[in-house]
Amino acid sequence: MKSISMTETVTLPLDEASDISLRILLNTGLSAAQAESVSEVIVAAQRDECHSHGLYRLIGCAYSVNIGSINKTASPKVVDLSPVIVKVDADFGFSSYAYEKGISLAVEKARRQGLAALAINNCYHFSALWAEIEPLAENGLAAFALTPSHSWVAPAGGTKPLFGTNPIAFAWPRTDDHPFVFDFATSATARGEIELHGRAGKKIAPGLAVDQQGQPTVDPAEALQGAMLTFGGHKGSALSAMVELLAGPLIGDMLSMESKAFDQERGAAPCHGELIVIFDPSVFLGDKLGFNLSRAEMLFESILGQGARLPSQRRYAARLTSVTNGVTIPKRLFDDLLQLLPNEHGSFGRVTQTI
Amino acid sequence: MKSISMTETVTLPLDEASDISLRILLNTGLSAAQAESVSEVIVAAQRDECHSHGLYRLIGCAYSVNIGSINKTASPKVVDLSPVIVKVDADFGFSSYAYEKGISLAVEKARRQGLAALAINNCYHFSALWAEIEPLAENGLAAFALTPSHSWVAPAGGTKPLFGTNPIAFAWPRTDDHPFVFDFATSATARGEIELHGRAGKKIAPGLAVDQQGQPTVDPAEALQGAMLTFGGHKGSALSAMVELLAGPLIGDMLSMESKAFDQERGAAPCHGELIVIFDPSVFLGDKLGFNLSRAEMLFESILGQGARLPSQRRYAARLTSVTNGVTIPKRLFDDLLQLLPNEHGSFGRVTQTI
Repeated sequence: MKSISMTETVTLPLDEASDISLRILLNTGLSAAQAESVSEVIVAAQRDECHSHGLYRLIGCAYSVNIGSINKTASPKVVDLSPVIVKVDADFGFSSYAYEKGISLAVEKARRQGLAALAINNCYHFSALWAEIEPLAENGLAAFALTPSHSWVAPAGGTKPLFGTNPIAFAWPRTDDHPFVFDFATSATARGEIELHGRAGKKIAPGLAVDQQGQPTVDPAEALQGAMLTFGGHKGSALSAMVELLAGPLIGDMLSMESKAFDQERGAAPCHGELIVIFDPSVFLGDKLGFNLSRAEMLFESILGQGARLPSQRRYAARLTSVTNGVTIPKRLFDDLLQLLPNEHGSFGRVTQTI
Repeated sequence: MKSISMTETVTLPLDEASDISLRILLNTGLSAAQAESVSEVIVAAQRDECHSHGLYRLIGCAYSVNIGSINKTASPKVVDLSPVIVKVDADFGFSSYAYEKGISLAVEKARRQGLAALAINNCYHFSALWAEIEPLAENGLAAFALTPSHSWVAPAGGTKPLFGTNPIAFAWPRTDDHPFVFDFATSATARGEIELHGRAGKKIAPGLAVDQQGQPTVDPAEALQGAMLTFGGHKGSALSAMVELLAGPLIGDMLSMESKAFDQERGAAPCHGELIVIFDPSVFLGDKLGFNLSRAEMLFESILGQGARLPSQRRYAARLTSVTNGVTIPKRLFDDLLQLLPNEHGSFGRVTQTI
């Protein structure tokens, strides 16, 4: 195997990225419906330059299937629990497929009552949460989503892994623009980012993690073996606990520590639950809807007007570029992906020297 | 007026604190029902040693009434908007009274459907949010509460006041203990804390605020005139925006910037909305309730087991002490409170020298 410079990259048109992604997933034996649903979310993340949830994530997804963790032929079961609660048992398949099965009913309930919850159980989660709520906001709804992960993060005041990276995502509908969307880990950084720093031979920033002895570290390998820290001290830690509780015990699913134990150190994607809460502003507001959506626009304009950015601005800009120019990934990642394709994989991409 | 040492304090039994509090509020002309509701929340905060929401807050509440901002005889109107949404128009009275009027119906809906929202509009908010959701968790429910305030906080990447201090509170029911409750400002500190530092002649910590020129400051007066910062950088800022949107436009109420303008620089408590979302775990879980509440206990035990604390631990400990020993406040605050009583105010408290 030839030595590869870290500066080499490969650029793929979006349709080629989709093709590779889908073929890698199908090559694991995943059902076509499940593979399509996973691939769509992964390519959308790469398109938006969310690298840790983009094509890189295919390695983890394929691995999770190949070691036998994922139910390749999962058949999610939708339960209409109450006029405002939909539960989906993901049947130990990937989360995005269960989401697809349950979201319409949850949206229907939100539109009728003004408020509804979608609880997904027994799913393997691999995606960024924005992918699940941005489409809701594109259809006039507000929503937030929560999910635990594996116990990798210490609570504030502690040094031992307990919480997951426990992301919180929120989306709000805008009248003439992409939705206002944020999605962040309650850990000080995403685990995927630490992994990518490790792959790139780079140190992580201080304040993100401690080693196994509870001492601060900037070494990615030590951080992954020790404990990550929450963002924002005790406040981030409190939010992380809230994610554990609402997307765990409230919906009858595992805490991050249980999910980690369930994995038996095999390193699969976390198996657990997810909670999405949906608000329909038109039910809350009636004929005051338009006025109040303008009010929200005033907030966004005031953020932008003082030179600050909206949370997903960079992502929407990347999306625009990717549609025209395709997506660019490290050649090392590209080569890893090729290994996951069937033997006859044809010719993809365009190797470029970025520096 | 004699010179008062900053070290002098006054200790009041809880019933005396309640008596003073209620008499101060009644002395403003507030209706008895409204005064009782406000007083209860303020004394509970002082009992739990939440000093910035305790007896100190009476000064601001009395001021807000005395300048004519508060509707002294407010009569909140409860609207049954949907099977899961209760709206209460607070009639420009204090929030706690409107909460009292609407909470039973919201709880009834949550118990029936599993999920419900209480939206309070046109209320003057003065209290910590935990006071509103802790009682829900004591009755087996989970809940979160959000409210904007006045535009005092700059978004991440900006330097101009836009967001309120925008607190987020969350409560979870525990089987054999006080509920798990957190309540924090999405600003890096509470505005009341900066005010209290100013009163005590102390500097604030770095990283909490910028001055009017957008430069970092540790001077309380400069901070109050400039802009406070959010906690946790862009993540805290994103959460603050979420609070604006869900407890503002979603429920048809003011953003913090509108609420500030509405006040016309009179310095009253913020007039705006509040959103409380309530979950009934027994609807989500059915006969799996007990198992999943134990699961949550496992999380709490793991936090405590590594020497970290639960968010309200200090507050519950203070409560226990206050019930026996009463509450202790600076003599300077005590004297300010006496000024708000009717002329014949009798004799309260016990002056003590703490250092």
